[in-house]
Amino acid sequence: MSVLIMSNTVHFKKVALIGVGLIGGSLALDMKAKAIADEIVGVGRTRGNLDTALTLGIVDSVTQDIAEGVKGADLVIVAVPVLKVASVIEAAAAHLADGCIVTDVGSVKERLITEVTPLLGDSVSFVPAHPVAGTENSGAGAALTGLFNGRNCIVTPTDSTNQGALATITELWRAVGSRVVVMEPALHDRILSAVSHLPHVIAYALVNTVAAAGKCAEGGEETDMLSYSAGGFRDFTRIASSSPEMWADICDMNSVAIVEMIEAFQTELDALKEAIETRNMDAVKDEFNVAKSLRDELIKST
Amino acid sequence: MSVLIMSNTVHFKKVALIGVGLIGGSLALDMKAKAIADEIVGVGRTRGNLDTALTLGIVDSVTQDIAEGVKGADLVIVAVPVLKVASVIEAAAAHLADGCIVTDVGSVKERLITEVTPLLGDSVSFVPAHPVAGTENSGAGAALTGLFNGRNCIVTPTDSTNQGALATITELWRAVGSRVVVMEPALHDRILSAVSHLPHVIAYALVNTVAAAGKCAEGGEETDMLSYSAGGFRDFTRIASSSPEMWADICDMNSVAIVEMIEAFQTELDALKEAIETRNMDAVKDEFNVAKSLRDELIKST
Repeated sequence: MSVLIMSNTVHFKKVALIGVGLIGGSLALDMKAKAIADEIVGVGRTRGNLDTALTLGIVDSVTQDIAEGVKGADLVIVAVPVLKVASVIEAAAAHLADGCIVTDVGSVKERLITEVTPLLGDSVSFVPAHPVAGTENSGAGAALTGLFNGRNCIVTPTDSTNQGALATITELWRAVGSRVVVMEPALHDRILSAVSHLPHVIAYALVNTVAAAGKCAEGGEETDMLSYSAGGFRDFTRIASSSPEMWADICDMNSVAIVEMIEAFQTELDALKEAIETRNMDAVKDEFNVAKSLRDELIKST
Repeated sequence: MSVLIMSNTVHFKKVALIGVGLIGGSLALDMKAKAIADEIVGVGRTRGNLDTALTLGIVDSVTQDIAEGVKGADLVIVAVPVLKVASVIEAAAAHLADGCIVTDVGSVKERLITEVTPLLGDSVSFVPAHPVAGTENSGAGAALTGLFNGRNCIVTPTDSTNQGALATITELWRAVGSRVVVMEPALHDRILSAVSHLPHVIAYALVNTVAAAGKCAEGGEETDMLSYSAGGFRDFTRIASSSPEMWADICDMNSVAIVEMIEAFQTELDALKEAIETRNMDAVKDEFNVAKSLRDELIKST
């Protein structure tokens, strides 16, 4: 794929960033560095986090008042946990300027769109988006310049999405280095349930399994099994250090796709367990070989 | 914990290293750097890998003949895949010098000890050991200096293990920076099934689940779901790039403990799935919170 590098044509006068965390804060840093916005107002509930954002130069000013924050903004970025997006937009709706574009960064799209769409009038446009990037850290202090560079940003318009606003948001994400992919909300949710939501659920479950196994070890003595883990386990469970609130919200919002994907995984794991139990080592090796090829291929293409 | 740094008292005249891969090669590099061995002979089946080991200065000489390699050695390190340890020791047994210590680095201990013990006469000592370290790479070219520094090395003697040989092998691993832990073979196998074997099985199963999910995506169209994965998924599946042969062997050797641990994990995952399905988000959040605390604690203590 060839990528056309062009100078920014996307520009906003006043951006209201509601939720100055890892994702919102990182986007603000890039927007300022690339002069995409004249002014960015950070809106949030926690004074301490807003002060951090201000001190770090992520935003130009801060407020805890949504109405004040969005007043006169030509772009409102809602970067709060997925479960709170609708209530934030509901609080903002009456105060949005005509022509304002509202966008989000949520990891779940279908239910979010269903919730948000009826809240907004015809004079503003909503463009659902999801930058597939992040770390296990959270808060304004975790924001990083260049977080989205080379990453996918999935934009999931519906039939009613304003085409001009869609083009603007596409340009915004391209300007911070992302590869923009447009797809149906339902496909997005299915893909993310596989490559992101399921791994998180597994990582949390695995850490708890290992901790519990140590409590009922041989002879009734407790063993701190986790203390015997090596680098592989630590990498493997890094995502279990992610925010429990945020991930519980995602599981809530995308429960149907996640449950389906857990079941697909359970089927796969059951087959592998049976192969190990019956010492069908050729089947085990085949499974492992296929996975290794896929994973090696994935890394090569990064 | 305070660590006493002392000069090496452990020393060998001739070391035969059977299997010059990531673990064996890394140990040889440290033994040479710390002058623990006068001479290290690399023994292996693959000429190319032995040549690599020689070129990289991991060993002083190489041979494909086990009998020749172990002749006159005061230490034989068997660093081949766990399933092959017994056959290698069987081939070496008749050629071992009196007083020779034989040790291994295998990730499974109980079945290996049962297989190896009857193969060796009274004039040699077998000390089962397992350095808990590694990367997803393999072969002599993957060997690293300092791989074992700060890592656990689990030594699993039995009632019949020679105490002097046990002390020597303990000193050897301490000399390369490891924290030596002595425990029952069965407990070792149970712990490793939890912190290492289960995560590998899960990682392989996850990669295959995601790849398969893309094949039956909405509308019958194929989607390369893996291409939408971000850093979390890549870290999470790093261990799925490990050697399929080695891991199938480990699953074979430790099948009972691994199947038990898979079942414990399945119970945990089932509960989490049910909580998500019934939207019992408090239960989900509790699970995630416990896992995050444990995982954060683990990283702090590293």
